[in-house]
Amino acid sequence: MRRILLTLTFNGKKYCGWQVQKNGISVCETVQNSLEKLFGSRPPLTGCGRTDSGVHAIRYYASFPIESSLSCHTITKAMGALLPADISVRSAAEVCGDFHPRYSALQKEYIYRIYTEKTRNPFYEGLSLFYPHELDISLLNKAAEYFVGKHDFSAFCTAGASVKDTVRNIYSLSIKPDVSDCSIVIISVKGDGFLYNMVRIIVGTLLYIAQGKISAEEISKIILSGDRKKAGPTALAHGLYLNEVWYPDSIFL
Amino acid sequence: MRRILLTLTFNGKKYCGWQVQKNGISVCETVQNSLEKLFGSRPPLTGCGRTDSGVHAIRYYASFPIESSLSCHTITKAMGALLPADISVRSAAEVCGDFHPRYSALQKEYIYRIYTEKTRNPFYEGLSLFYPHELDISLLNKAAEYFVGKHDFSAFCTAGASVKDTVRNIYSLSIKPDVSDCSIVIISVKGDGFLYNMVRIIVGTLLYIAQGKISAEEISKIILSGDRKKAGPTALAHGLYLNEVWYPDSIFL
Repeated sequence: MRRILLTLTFNGKKYCGWQVQKNGISVCETVQNSLEKLFGSRPPLTGCGRTDSGVHAIRYYASFPIESSLSCHTITKAMGALLPADISVRSAAEVCGDFHPRYSALQKEYIYRIYTEKTRNPFYEGLSLFYPHELDISLLNKAAEYFVGKHDFSAFCTAGASVKDTVRNIYSLSIKPDVSDCSIVIISVKGDGFLYNMVRIIVGTLLYIAQGKISAEEISKIILSGDRKKAGPTALAHGLYLNEVWYPDSIFL
Repeated sequence: MRRILLTLTFNGKKYCGWQVQKNGISVCETVQNSLEKLFGSRPPLTGCGRTDSGVHAIRYYASFPIESSLSCHTITKAMGALLPADISVRSAAEVCGDFHPRYSALQKEYIYRIYTEKTRNPFYEGLSLFYPHELDISLLNKAAEYFVGKHDFSAFCTAGASVKDTVRNIYSLSIKPDVSDCSIVIISVKGDGFLYNMVRIIVGTLLYIAQGKISAEEISKIILSGDRKKAGPTALAHGLYLNEVWYPDSIFL
């Protein structure tokens, strides 16, 4: 039995997220449908994490076990022909049997796109948060520093999530204009992992700071409080992208 | 009677082009529908040129006469609420009565986006030509020089077009990678006007040069021949964007 790792890109607009749900079509089952057409059997497919409805991925990793002699190049090409236009297999690779897309991950990076012009842009619909106000990027970067490091992020986690360990290490959090369109502001956050809705709540809190509702210095207090109500709102899903996940080189055969 | 100039952006994916057609929904009639809701009457709407089905516009200009005291700011905001998500009014301005979006234009610029990675990208579907091959950008820029200047571009015009004067002046034609994603190659062409399908045929000819089917030096001969069959094929519509149109400052009131 081989284990294949797929690198996917998907536009999440039409999907209820990665994981299979009752009310909507998931990215996972859509990829499985194509795998079933290719292999004649429906392999279990494990993803690198849940994603909310409408969230996108520049790079998403998923793996499955299969009895097949198809080369990774052939799998990539065939999946390109079988998948709908909003999901793409960028590459396939053979990994060791005990690899797990979620538990083997070393780091993850999300980006959040905010479109700040006064009028809507048809090319960014469903792909960026429409926020028609100027953003003080240096103020936001000052606030961002308070998030970096190892903290209990309970205040930045949607209530009801059942995780026990709410400590996460944020390696970097930066805010800058997009190089090709300065009306787009990109928030990038890299960490060892993220709690449920954590990135979207961080973004909502940064927007509260931009609006003067809370000060940058209050971030530390909000983190220490562990109180979800003290942080900002959960920013809309459609500005969020899983950008990259890093794995140890030793996983590849 | 005032004359209002709208600056529009549209994603052409769902439309049969700017102009009203029997078989499809046009951008023009969609904008007119919203104008009718706003003003209670349906003004005639004149655009800065035809666009093919699937062609996009970063900036497209259209004007209409109206008896109304609504400010340009109010028109912009109201149209933002009335138009579908794939068309946006970026601004409205009052122009002089004899202004014509097509005949008053001094220069136009189109861009054409080519996506060159091996696998499809869900975020570029319908927004770039999928061309999974490397492009020799310096070769293409060398070829581009032959197009620049005042020429009879009959060889780069779809047969059946009824224009008499087929001389156009191309001010610049350049090819470079997109600053935010080097897998996207952008062809930009600026001129005093363009014949029917001229930009798409220039792109198709540049791709023929990339493929070694014709040499860069042959461009001059093809132009001189006036023979459509000697130029390359018409590149697909969905990579094409009207990027900007320039008008004299004197048009604005």
